[in-house]
Amino acid sequence: MATINLKDIPESGSLPEDFLFAGVDGGGTRCRAVIYDQQGKRLGKSISGPANVANDFELAKESIMESIAYAIRDAQLSSRDLSRLVVGAALAGLHLPSAQKKLDEWDHPFCKMYSTTDIHAAVLGAHQGKNGGVIVFGTGFSALGLVDGQQHSIGGFGFPTNAIGSGAWFGLEAVKAVLLDADKIGPSTRMTDELLSDISLSAFAERMHTTTPNQFAELAPLVFKHAKEGDAIAMDLIKEGAAFAGRVIDRLIDLGAGKVSLVGGVAMQITPWLEAAHQRHLVEAHSSPEWGAVLFAQQQTAD
Amino acid sequence: MATINLKDIPESGSLPEDFLFAGVDGGGTRCRAVIYDQQGKRLGKSISGPANVANDFELAKESIMESIAYAIRDAQLSSRDLSRLVVGAALAGLHLPSAQKKLDEWDHPFCKMYSTTDIHAAVLGAHQGKNGGVIVFGTGFSALGLVDGQQHSIGGFGFPTNAIGSGAWFGLEAVKAVLLDADKIGPSTRMTDELLSDISLSAFAERMHTTTPNQFAELAPLVFKHAKEGDAIAMDLIKEGAAFAGRVIDRLIDLGAGKVSLVGGVAMQITPWLEAAHQRHLVEAHSSPEWGAVLFAQQQTAD
Repeated sequence: MATINLKDIPESGSLPEDFLFAGVDGGGTRCRAVIYDQQGKRLGKSISGPANVANDFELAKESIMESIAYAIRDAQLSSRDLSRLVVGAALAGLHLPSAQKKLDEWDHPFCKMYSTTDIHAAVLGAHQGKNGGVIVFGTGFSALGLVDGQQHSIGGFGFPTNAIGSGAWFGLEAVKAVLLDADKIGPSTRMTDELLSDISLSAFAERMHTTTPNQFAELAPLVFKHAKEGDAIAMDLIKEGAAFAGRVIDRLIDLGAGKVSLVGGVAMQITPWLEAAHQRHLVEAHSSPEWGAVLFAQQQTAD
Repeated sequence: MATINLKDIPESGSLPEDFLFAGVDGGGTRCRAVIYDQQGKRLGKSISGPANVANDFELAKESIMESIAYAIRDAQLSSRDLSRLVVGAALAGLHLPSAQKKLDEWDHPFCKMYSTTDIHAAVLGAHQGKNGGVIVFGTGFSALGLVDGQQHSIGGFGFPTNAIGSGAWFGLEAVKAVLLDADKIGPSTRMTDELLSDISLSAFAERMHTTTPNQFAELAPLVFKHAKEGDAIAMDLIKEGAAFAGRVIDRLIDLGAGKVSLVGGVAMQITPWLEAAHQRHLVEAHSSPEWGAVLFAQQQTAD
């Protein structure tokens, strides 16, 4: 091809003088973006919709563009400034080779875009680039240990094969328990009364037949609510999720991560159920994954 | 509409003199058809592809037509004889209202078509129309008790919400265990060595991301093979499936089914793992689900 793509002209080390950093954290439910100047001052931030590049690449691309457009506006900049952005794009689902390939082929409007997984940015943010581990219990499950610059990935393979402790897993397990209870081939749970209060069993089961991981994850709060009220099945599910979290913490410590942060929508609710031996390895995430995505873009630019 | 649909002319009780019975048993993996004359003599039989009307209605319709076309040929009849057929169509997925609606709207070429679930035909076949229960552990799971003409349905709501003990469930659980083992956050199993012998972990995980219930079910034999060789994880899965089967047997007995038959591709391999207290309720299925579908068509015609 004889055409020259303008956005490719500024090579690493030859960025426009007034370039800015953008950090994007794209997950299965939401995409967050931040914009920072070269001195590390945050200029804008925003939030948009789902951005899991393995689940729906086109939707993810839209969410990324939308979150950056909103952050640009929040920073009182305009769309002409898109070409000033050095983007760190941290995206759920990017561990799949096919998703990475699609992203590489994207003719994006930015000055530069460096991509990594959402979990990598989460670790960079949580431990400010130092050694540490992160376990995500959000819509899905994944974990990463960063030890002396080396990434040790755990899980992140998706629902339903690899999602224990995630929101989607809690929702699916709740539905499984409710269907068995309704058929009198499983222990009784109050979740059955709630989920079948205004719908027939067959209509409920049919709705569940086309339920997405996101929709299953919306049922996770039901489990935590009923566990609080003493429902044995709901409590058993959380114990199973917490025991699993404990095994992942042990593995990250074995790998040399030192400290571990639990992040994601379900994480805070699992934490109190962890054994003390696991709790003592936990620290609060220091900074956000979006900030971690900015740090990643900075690291790549400095290389 | 002023047009008259010829196939609707023979009302129940006014069938063509030379009508024949066809029984169709459509499941998630295969569709079987048989043709009987009015005296109960089998004229032909055949087999074709998947016919779960909830999973893929168009494919199911094709499989039904194909199986009947093959059975017609096996009976040395021709396509002109399609209009002589009183079809009992017993189809997986038909408990879902949307699937039933699509089937009702089908402009089929038969003299009559009476539809019911695959599991209903299985019970009719297994116990020759008398009281009894059937539990299907095939690609999916479902169960039905027939007590004094009354159907008591259990499960059948599909994968992954309601599939314990089924082939798809065994496959999914094996993959879950392998992914945890490979990440060193779950117990070790020899299934990992086998499934990851010629593929990287990430490539395997990506393939599993788009795996269908049928494809998961293809992994079920792996579980039984490794259980036989003493793999603890594989044995635990079968014990869990067998314990579940025991609860379903108990429920069918409570409902008054008297005797229970286990059918489907995985059933035979679960049976030896059942407790004696559950084994004693089991009987071999007397006749096939296709024969049950013919019996169903006969019952409907006699009404």
